[in-house]
This record gives sequence, structure tokens and C-alpha cells, in this order.
Amino acid sequence: MTRKLNFSSGPAALPEPVLRRTQAALWDLDGTGIGILEHSHRGKAFRAVMDRTTALIREVGGIGDDFAILFITAGATHHFSMVPQNFLGETDTVDICHTGVWSAKAIAEARRFGNVHIACSSAPTFDTTPAIEAYSASPRYVHYTSNETIYGTQWPTPPASPPAPLVCDASSDIFSRPLPLADHGLIYAGAQKNLGPSGISLVIARKSFVATRRPGLPPLADYMTYVTEGSLHNTPNTFGIYMIGEVMAWIREQGGLAVLGERNARKAALLYDFLDHSKRWRAHAKPGSRSNMNITFRGDSPALEAALIARAEERGMSGLPGHRDVGGLRASIYNAFPEDGVHQLIQLLDEVEG
Amino acid sequence: MTRKLNFSSGPAALPEPVLRRTQAALWDLDGTGIGILEHSHRGKAFRAVMDRTTALIREVGGIGDDFAILFITAGATHHFSMVPQNFLGETDTVDICHTGVWSAKAIAEARRFGNVHIACSSAPTFDTTPAIEAYSASPRYVHYTSNETIYGTQWPTPPASPPAPLVCDASSDIFSRPLPLADHGLIYAGAQKNLGPSGISLVIARKSFVATRRPGLPPLADYMTYVTEGSLHNTPNTFGIYMIGEVMAWIREQGGLAVLGERNARKAALLYDFLDHSKRWRAHAKPGSRSNMNITFRGDSPALEAALIARAEERGMSGLPGHRDVGGLRASIYNAFPEDGVHQLIQLLDEVEG
Repeated sequence: MTRKLNFSSGPAALPEPVLRRTQAALWDLDGTGIGILEHSHRGKAFRAVMDRTTALIREVGGIGDDFAILFITAGATHHFSMVPQNFLGETDTVDICHTGVWSAKAIAEARRFGNVHIACSSAPTFDTTPAIEAYSASPRYVHYTSNETIYGTQWPTPPASPPAPLVCDASSDIFSRPLPLADHGLIYAGAQKNLGPSGISLVIARKSFVATRRPGLPPLADYMTYVTEGSLHNTPNTFGIYMIGEVMAWIREQGGLAVLGERNARKAALLYDFLDHSKRWRAHAKPGSRSNMNITFRGDSPALEAALIARAEERGMSGLPGHRDVGGLRASIYNAFPEDGVHQLIQLLDEVEG
Repeated sequence: MTRKLNFSSGPAALPEPVLRRTQAALWDLDGTGIGILEHSHRGKAFRAVMDRTTALIREVGGIGDDFAILFITAGATHHFSMVPQNFLGETDTVDICHTGVWSAKAIAEARRFGNVHIACSSAPTFDTTPAIEAYSASPRYVHYTSNETIYGTQWPTPPASPPAPLVCDASSDIFSRPLPLADHGLIYAGAQKNLGPSGISLVIARKSFVATRRPGLPPLADYMTYVTEGSLHNTPNTFGIYMIGEVMAWIREQGGLAVLGERNARKAALLYDFLDHSKRWRAHAKPGSRSNMNITFRGDSPALEAALIARAEERGMSGLPGHRDVGGLRASIYNAFPEDGVHQLIQLLDEVEG
């Protein structure tokens, strides 16, 4: 069976060597005679999986002991509530960078718990990662979405000179380039783009920041529980932790985050360059704010877009329609997406353009 | 590679045909050319997975349209908080049947939200599922743990004549026998024993009961969100939903829940019968309250127990030590555990007894 070229925005294409190793581990993990799904989370074999996954995340990400590595059974949407629940008292203010659909959700959830100040906004077009307009007087933390999957923007560098710890929703670009840890209090990411399966999130949390969370929360709503109990307060998503470890090993084999960062920039530049020179296709995001993960673009007519999608289906290219809320087209080309697939897409765009 | 005989209490042994099908689906789901982990949760292929899983759960469980089938990215521990958060106001009272470690956690979390009345208790030995002592005057709901994995008890039938909807933590015996839906408002179960991987829970919720939940909760904390959005408010654990569907198909192939219920009772009776006639081994739970899923037992000396564990390891039998809080031994023999494995354990117990 030929596998399709999968442009899905997430869950998304995973590295094929990781899929092959995972197939074997379903039957027998590490020669234990028991599959990864069937091992107790309290046993030696899973302990080894947890330890190696955590060690690989630290190694690949260059993450020191001032940060804790947490695995939380939830997607990023859960953190939209959990972050303010932990860090935002009723009279506190969080500064949020508003760059699209995901930051809007983070804003709505934060407002349940405290005050929200919009530090910058690219509404309504959401085609940039805007410069900070003004921080509030004394924010509790500063939240931003490092990559906007729906509008196709990505912060080239984190918001500058934050007056409080940065909290980053990095769901769609984590480990696609070297990790910016400076100024950050907490980075959370749903796994289903660059890390592994859906249903688990990775949190990289500065221990001193977690220590400032509001006490008295239910244990699974409290980030500190995951720190003190090593993400084993209850049964974690053991399969997700295993797969994240395999993906980390694959990233290391590729040469690490600097190499992947260059590769991802090159892949995206090929496509942006084509779009910028095309007569009938145009990229949505502005130069300087463009995502290397999700390239959003439009044709000059609905007929052109429909023709592309139909032709793509015929050639085994899947997942190109844009998000249902914004339409257009989107090529999601995360770490595991092959450079050759970008060339195939460009060729097709060129053909359809006529 | 020979697979071990896996007595783990969860994550636990899964049906081998399901593992084989899952291996194939990791590479290519249903001939789509994309693996199950890589499919968008908004796409046609996953929609088909969701629909068939839900339909199979309804068919196998005999569940009508008065109930909703929900998939929640969380284990049962999360529901210990989420149930009272949804249903228990500050002045409300929940009646809880206290039968061990899991009900103790449910009690602790419920006390954060409202009042708890202990309707019955088997403390401190937790060797029975006790008769109701007294319900409170007007409970909001009645909570019980249908099977106690750590102490090895199981309710033969649900608590009788509840004055309010029953809420059941069925994590460790769901779909091991016909499902008792009468009187129930909500049944929740972590998947990692009889349903699939860890990191996802199945909730079977009476729609009229969910409608009585407290409004204004964050969307992912509100059971109604899962009802109205078909468990797709955010990216669900797509792999978990796939696997639950495969396990349901396997249950149907086995003949359904009545057949499994008889098979599980027979498997457990073999072991209890041996223990009851043994001079040196004894079952922990009392007849009438014994679990068909987790058979907990002790030897007459620590040396005897240690000898068994050592000999079991040599023979490729894994997971027999009891829970770290209570010690002793435990044989977890869920749906997927083969009857022949029970015979092998009995033979070993007999040999070690000398």
C-alpha cells in the first residue's frame, strides 16, 4: 500500500521509522514479552520508557534542571483553562498576544479566572505576529501562541522584554527549531503535530514558576502534582509517552533541532517563494511572520482552489483544504513531512495555475 | 518472541487479534493510505472510526438513545473531580459507597464541592461490597465503584433502590458482563483494563442526568460539551477511540457480554475454588463480593509469597505482586486474559504450596 502525502494540520504525518518501531512495540516492548499498551505504568519496563523519553526531551531541547518535563493527559485546549486556574487570581491580570483562533480561546478561558489585557493583536486579518503594543502594569504572566495553525503565522522570536514569565502554547511548532527557554515560565503543547499521538500534552515548566501556582486545586488540575509525582499521580497516557520518546530519538538521529529548524525553513521557503512569484496563488501571512509549519494560501478564484483540491486528491495528496472557519488552502508541513512532498505540491500548483 | 502471561491490573493484556489489527492501522487505516495516528479528527476516515466505535459500544452494551456515549481525554481519576464539579452544589449531598482506595479518592474530591454521606462502608478490611446502611434524605446522586482492583471485590449487582441516579466508576469491570443501565445516571471508565489504551475514558451518560449539571463550567470540564459536540470540542484521543472500537468488535466476535460474563465467572471460579481448598493460600475477598477481574490473595508467609513471585517470573508470568499499598498477590484476569493462563497459575500455586 502506498501511503499518501499527508498535509493534515494535526493529527499529522509522523516519521515512518517511528511508526515501524511502534508497530513492533505494540506486540513486544523492548524484548519484555509484553506490548507497550499492556505494561503497568508502575512497572520497570514503563519506568524505562518514561526515563528515556524524559532524558531525550531534555537532551534534544537543551533543557536543564530548572525546568520540569510533564506529561498531561489532555490536549492544549485543556491548558487554556488550566493555566489561569493555576496562575491567575481574580484580581490578577494576564497579558495575552492575540494572533488568531487559539489565542481567542485562551483569552476566553482566562477571563473566567481573572483580568485579560491584550498586549498586541493582529485581528481581524491575523496575518502577522504583531509587535507588542503595551504590556499592562504588572501582569501575572504573558501568554502567546508560538505558531497559529489556522492563519499560518509563527513568531520568529518570542515577545520581547516581557515583564513577567512567558507562557507559550507551542502545540504546532514545538521541536521544529531550537527551543527558546529564556523568559519562559511554561510551555505547553498538544502532541499531535510534532510529537506523537493526540490525547497527551507535553509541558516544559520552570519549577520556580510552578511553585507560584494557587494552592488547593484538585490534584490533576494542579501543575505541581505532575512535578512532585513525576506525571504518575494516576495512569498517564503510556502509549503517548512511548511515542514521544521515539519521535525524540528520531529528531536526534536527524541531527537535532538546529538541523530540523534549517530543514523546516528551507521547506517552507520553497513554497512561499513559489506563491510570491505566482500570478494566481498568494500566501496569507506577511513576510516576517510566516509559519514554517502551516502555509496558508488562496487562489484567485474558488474554481482554482476547487481544481487544486480535486487534482490533489487524484495524486494521493491529502489534507490541503484550509480550516473550516477560514477556508482557502493550507499545507501543513511539520517535521515529519518530506521535502520532496513540497516539490510535488509546487509542481501541482504550477500545473493548476496553467 | 513468546509473549508473557500478563496479570497486570492495568494497563493490562489486550486481545492479540486487536493488537495485530492495530499494528496494521498504524501504517494504513482502512486502506486510506494514512495511519490512524495521522488522520485529522475532522476528516472522513476518522469520522467513520468514531461512528463505528460508538455504534459498536451501543450494540455490545445494549445502550439506547437515552444515553450518550462520550470519549474524554482523561483517566477515571479526573472524573473523581469532574463528577462533583458537574453535579454537586455546595449545599448538595452525594451518597458514596466506600469500598476501598478508589472510593476514598472519589470521596476526597467530592468533599471539595459539597457534602458527602457514606451510604455504606467495608473499611478497614475492604473484603466485601457492603449492603447499604442508610441513604441520606435527598442525595444528588449515589456513587459506587463497581469493581475494586486493589482489594479484589466486585458488586454482584448495583446498590439497591437508590433514591437518586447512580454514578458508577466502572473502570475495571466495564464490558466484562452485561451492563446494568437501570437506575444509572452516569458510568465512567478509564480504558486501560477492558477497553484499550490508557489516557482515555469512556462515559455512558443518561442525557436527562447530564442536563442537570451546573452550567458555566469551562467547556472541557462540562459533560454537556461532550454530548453536544460529539466528543469533538477539541482533538480527542483518536488512537484510543480506534482501539476501543477494535476491542468492541472483538467482544462481539466472542459472542457479546453475556458470553464474556460467563467466561469471566468461570475463569475466576477456578482460582477461587483452588484458593478455598488450599492449606497455604487464601483469597482476600469474601464470597458474594468477589471480583471476577482481580483475584487478591495471600500466602501463609512472606517466604511463600516471595517464592511464588520468583517462580512465576521464571515461567514468564508477569504482574502478580499485589498493589504497593496492600501487598500480597493479585491475579488480574480481564476479558483478554486466557483461561489457560488461570490453569497455569493454579498449577504453579499448587507446586509452590508443596
